Amino acid sequence: MSHLTKLQKTLETEALDALLLHDRPSKRYVGALPGSGVYVMITPTQALQLHDGRYRAEAADTQGFTNVEVPQGSYLPQLIDCLKTQGSQHIGLVSGGFSIAEYQALATHNWTLTLADDLVARQRAVKDEAEIAAVTAACAVTDTIFAQLLPHIRPGVSEQTLSAWLHFYALEAGASAMAFDPIIASGPRGAFPHGRPTARRLEEGELITVDFGVVFDDYQSDMTRTLSIGSPPPELAAVHEAVLTAQQTAIAAIKPGMQGREVDAIARGVLTAAGYGDCFTHGLGHGLGLGGDQPILNPRSQMILQPGMIVTVEPGAYLPGIGGVRIEDDVVITATGVRVLNQTPRHLTQLEVVENEPV
Amino acid sequence: MSHLTKLQKTLETEALDALLLHDRPSKRYVGALPGSGVYVMITPTQALQLHDGRYRAEAADTQGFTNVEVPQGSYLPQLIDCLKTQGSQHIGLVSGGFSIAEYQALATHNWTLTLADDLVARQRAVKDEAEIAAVTAACAVTDTIFAQLLPHIRPGVSEQTLSAWLHFYALEAGASAMAFDPIIASGPRGAFPHGRPTARRLEEGELITVDFGVVFDDYQSDMTRTLSIGSPPPELAAVHEAVLTAQQTAIAAIKPGMQGREVDAIARGVLTAAGYGDCFTHGLGHGLGLGGDQPILNPRSQMILQPGMIVTVEPGAYLPGIGGVRIEDDVVITATGVRVLNQTPRHLTQLEVVENEPV
Repeated sequence: MSHLTKLQKTLETEALDALLLHDRPSKRYVGALPGSGVYVMITPTQALQLHDGRYRAEAADTQGFTNVEVPQGSYLPQLIDCLKTQGSQHIGLVSGGFSIAEYQALATHNWTLTLADDLVARQRAVKDEAEIAAVTAACAVTDTIFAQLLPHIRPGVSEQTLSAWLHFYALEAGASAMAFDPIIASGPRGAFPHGRPTARRLEEGELITVDFGVVFDDYQSDMTRTLSIGSPPPELAAVHEAVLTAQQTAIAAIKPGMQGREVDAIARGVLTAAGYGDCFTHGLGHGLGLGGDQPILNPRSQMILQPGMIVTVEPGAYLPGIGGVRIEDDVVITATGVRVLNQTPRHLTQLEVVENEPV
Repeated sequence: MSHLTKLQKTLETEALDALLLHDRPSKRYVGALPGSGVYVMITPTQALQLHDGRYRAEAADTQGFTNVEVPQGSYLPQLIDCLKTQGSQHIGLVSGGFSIAEYQALATHNWTLTLADDLVARQRAVKDEAEIAAVTAACAVTDTIFAQLLPHIRPGVSEQTLSAWLHFYALEAGASAMAFDPIIASGPRGAFPHGRPTARRLEEGELITVDFGVVFDDYQSDMTRTLSIGSPPPELAAVHEAVLTAQQTAIAAIKPGMQGREVDAIARGVLTAAGYGDCFTHGLGHGLGLGGDQPILNPRSQMILQPGMIVTVEPGAYLPGIGGVRIEDDVVITATGVRVLNQTPRHLTQLEVVENEPV
């Protein structure tokens, strides 16, 4: 069953007469055009794509949608007209793509307007084969890019130069964009879980954390590795071992039917037992797909894991002033456990100390 | 006067008791921390920065703000508490950074909630010397990056490889990110004003349009050039001449006191006289700064241009199936006209046809 058809069945179950979408992931998910000049209205029996003239040719090629061409900028009045024509009484809004002004315009009518974010998020959380293949492909490219980056990680090279190479290899491989601004944090900066690349130059005997992902055919990847430039400081080698054990223990334990918080608790338990519980300052992971995916793995998440969900598993430990470690893989949940989508080795790789950059 | 003080005076004039900000550009503008876990409340006499524990150290270094540390995720209830404590009756919301759910939570109280986007946008539109210097610096880097890209533009190279090099040079130069996903459109794809880079390989005797910008210290640049790989097709050389004349005529005409639509009309008039009026399918330009800046230059814009505003001037002409041309510069409006911030030549550069990529 197509994503669109499945969503239309949910509308019936939820007694919603219409669902409005404007955010890029939702539109891509139902097979509509993702551009900003396209608004989507789905009813249990129909799917309308309102677009301006710029999208005429592409809209004609879109499967499953009735196209309504409207003047640029007049999307909202036209959407309201369509809703009135359909006699919609109970309308669901996927809020992400709508401005507050648009919400106000939609809310001042004689119908019930409900935020339907969860409804779509729950359906999007479970991936079909094509989606799993898309994320798997993005992960494979991510492995390749990381391998290409490795020879550049040497003393004297700055974090921002490494970021430049990451961007280069990703775009060169055909990624449409980075999934997010890469995190590259070396030495004591490794203690910042979201450290953006700076002009700081790498030094021998320190760790470096590289966290990046790419967008491939609209689907994302996300991977983190922490490496050592030459011999690691013993204190941080121990942290790396604890984080890796926490990650592998969590990955081995994941099964359908568990709550997100149960998986988080397993990794957190390993780190706490190793004395690093307070150093793990964020949740264990998040959904992965078109962007902003469920489920979340953190101490509060009660979402039940199901086969087909894809999540990141990324424990970390951060020692202010000293450094930090994070290891992240993407896994798809199967009937009995998980399949790990990244192939890049996870152990504390000790990079050979060579001063010159490769040609 | 600081941006914050100026905004506080505007609150008094507009009889607003408080202004709420959460979008990154607005927070950066008033000197607050731009991170997502930071919410800002400004009153005529006070400026509060609500942040979670992750921002403790940085918050302590922020000038002009009283810090309120709150648990992660509980920003809204705390913000509502602060507003009640202050006895706020009339609250302005800069809507960009707030979700519709947050808006709903704020709206269900005994006060008046008004969208204050325009108020902040109008003030942000006029840049001070430091902001002009920041955009000028971003433009200078953009010129350098473009010069580095030129030797790569050769027959056989793909659009996405050029995009990879653009990213590389930008990040290597210290840009924190690209201002937007670069537009690289060669040959017939030049007819797409927003053509994203594809695997298409460049050919001799065709044009290529490159439109990109960088983020430097949070301020953006934006530049477009259309080049010829070897000799241009005569039809498109004529289009380039018309677009360049339109751009230069508009730039020469801009003066404080004009409306945005008057500037747009000048460029549009030149292209219409040359027979390309219908091929210029978008507005002439937009404000430039921290992101989403005013004023807009298009046929509807009534905003009055003032000294200190920075706008892009980017006419284009697109011939479906054949190709297209766009030329874009960033200009700061002065007391008597404009100062152009980009130095890269605008004429139809004919690149030497060399088959090999540079080392």
